[in-house]
Amino acid sequence: MNKAIFYHAGCPVCLDAEQMLIKTINTSQYLLEIVDLKEQPSRLREAQLSGVQSVPALALDDRIFHINFGAALADLIF
Amino acid sequence: MNKAIFYHAGCPVCLDAEQMLIKTINTSQYLLEIVDLKEQPSRLREAQLSGVQSVPALALDDRIFHINFGAALADLIF
Repeated sequence: MNKAIFYHAGCPVCLDAEQMLIKTINTSQYLLEIVDLKEQPSRLREAQLSGVQSVPALALDDRIFHINFGAALADLIF
Repeated sequence: MNKAIFYHAGCPVCLDAEQMLIKTINTSQYLLEIVDLKEQPSRLREAQLSGVQSVPALALDDRIFHINFGAALADLIF
């Protein structure tokens, strides 16, 4: 099973994208992990290193897909 | 079956997002239509009216999800 990680920060734009993913992702192929960076700030570094620049973002097969714009990652870190 | 429309313009960012969608979307729930706005400029107005501001973008359940940034819709229209 491939893993897809959805990073968000609880903002309305993030929650919209989260609902879209939950509805559309093929769960027989992908295991979707949802990470709220406000609740799990320890995951910020990992998100940053993987290329996340803003949330909401989906990390999938070593690529990052930024979906709409909720907040810059830098605004969550600093 | 719900319909999901993926608008793109053939750019590398678009093709990346297209591959991601093809791999991840739950095809038992969603019928994915792929529209290349360079090849089908007659769909530009529909995309604009539905809220697409840039490509690649996914229209789903009356919402638009802009995925990364390839090109502004205005650059395709004008």
